[in-house]
Amino acid sequence: MAMRNKVSETVIRRLPIYHRIISDVITKGIERISSQELSKLTGFTASQIRQDFNNFGGFGQQGYGYNTEALRNEIAEILGMNYEYKTIVVGAGRLGTAIADYEGIKNSGFKIVALFDHDETKIGNFIHGVEILDMEKLDEFVKENSIDVAIITVPKTVAVDIIYKLSELDVKGIWNFAPVDVYVEGTVIENIRINDSLFKLSYYLKNND
Amino acid sequence: MAMRNKVSETVIRRLPIYHRIISDVITKGIERISSQELSKLTGFTASQIRQDFNNFGGFGQQGYGYNTEALRNEIAEILGMNYEYKTIVVGAGRLGTAIADYEGIKNSGFKIVALFDHDETKIGNFIHGVEILDMEKLDEFVKENSIDVAIITVPKTVAVDIIYKLSELDVKGIWNFAPVDVYVEGTVIENIRINDSLFKLSYYLKNND
Repeated sequence: MAMRNKVSETVIRRLPIYHRIISDVITKGIERISSQELSKLTGFTASQIRQDFNNFGGFGQQGYGYNTEALRNEIAEILGMNYEYKTIVVGAGRLGTAIADYEGIKNSGFKIVALFDHDETKIGNFIHGVEILDMEKLDEFVKENSIDVAIITVPKTVAVDIIYKLSELDVKGIWNFAPVDVYVEGTVIENIRINDSLFKLSYYLKNND
Repeated sequence: MAMRNKVSETVIRRLPIYHRIISDVITKGIERISSQELSKLTGFTASQIRQDFNNFGGFGQQGYGYNTEALRNEIAEILGMNYEYKTIVVGAGRLGTAIADYEGIKNSGFKIVALFDHDETKIGNFIHGVEILDMEKLDEFVKENSIDVAIITVPKTVAVDIIYKLSELDVKGIWNFAPVDVYVEGTVIENIRINDSLFKLSYYLKNND
């Protein structure tokens, strides 16, 4: 399938949701699914779904629905879910260890190979078989192990410097949980704010009456 | 300002981002901002930004830009950020305690008043001044304290039952981190998958070369 450029971020954001829902459907033994059925399961309109899939050349045949296995595999391929990324977690506090331990990450292509922290009481401990290493060894470790991705859970005050450094060390992707947006040219950085979705919740709470 | 109904979820999702960026701008002493400047800071197009704000009646005057203070306050009001929601965390494992401890939540209107867990070694401990209570006391506590919001970080196997129960107990909003999507009529549920954004990262990693 020919990849087309410039797929919008909102489409990319829906793909993991499609992937998850189609995986559920496959578990139930369902082999074909229409955009109407997908619409019920996702809450997106059927026309939106067809448009989304057309961005990538479409996956199905009009009137026949989509083959669920093929659809899942294509989406996984588009999302790069079939690749393995050597990943480290920088900051082994509550959030860092929670992420290293999070079910969806353990089963993804992001293979966590080490955590890093300054705290001597943490260094040498293991989180699900992955060791917490001394932050002083970060540079050396990243170079020697050709790390692809870093998950940042250190405080905002140190996050920016660490991200710049990792970027210079050729880390390709950063998943930044520190509450500061960082952009570095040539590095893919996903700045996450867990509480953005909390405010979405508060919007709906306020407007639900 | 008259609220209009049926604002799309993608717009709602952008509002916390506007709020955060405008707050940064205000810290720098900037009093007015154009949609072009906001475009540079957010990565959304200027016309998208104007459209988004028009959903709520618009905030500015053509050609004059937006007053940053007024804009921030309006968005906070729309998002219900000025309200206080009595919140509990169900599940005091790594993720539950990380969330209770997360900077952006501590400073939001979601006031965490208790955590709940089955683990006797955790019960009675405090996370930043908030006590971990026995899960057996969940029903009673929710009723007596008129809890508004519950953050769910228990395993998938028990999450569904707990969410149904909380919904019956009139909890109005659920922020569900268990890897299972749950929908209950009359309850606002935000099903979160931390790793959806991880796959967005892997998409960009794969297509960055």
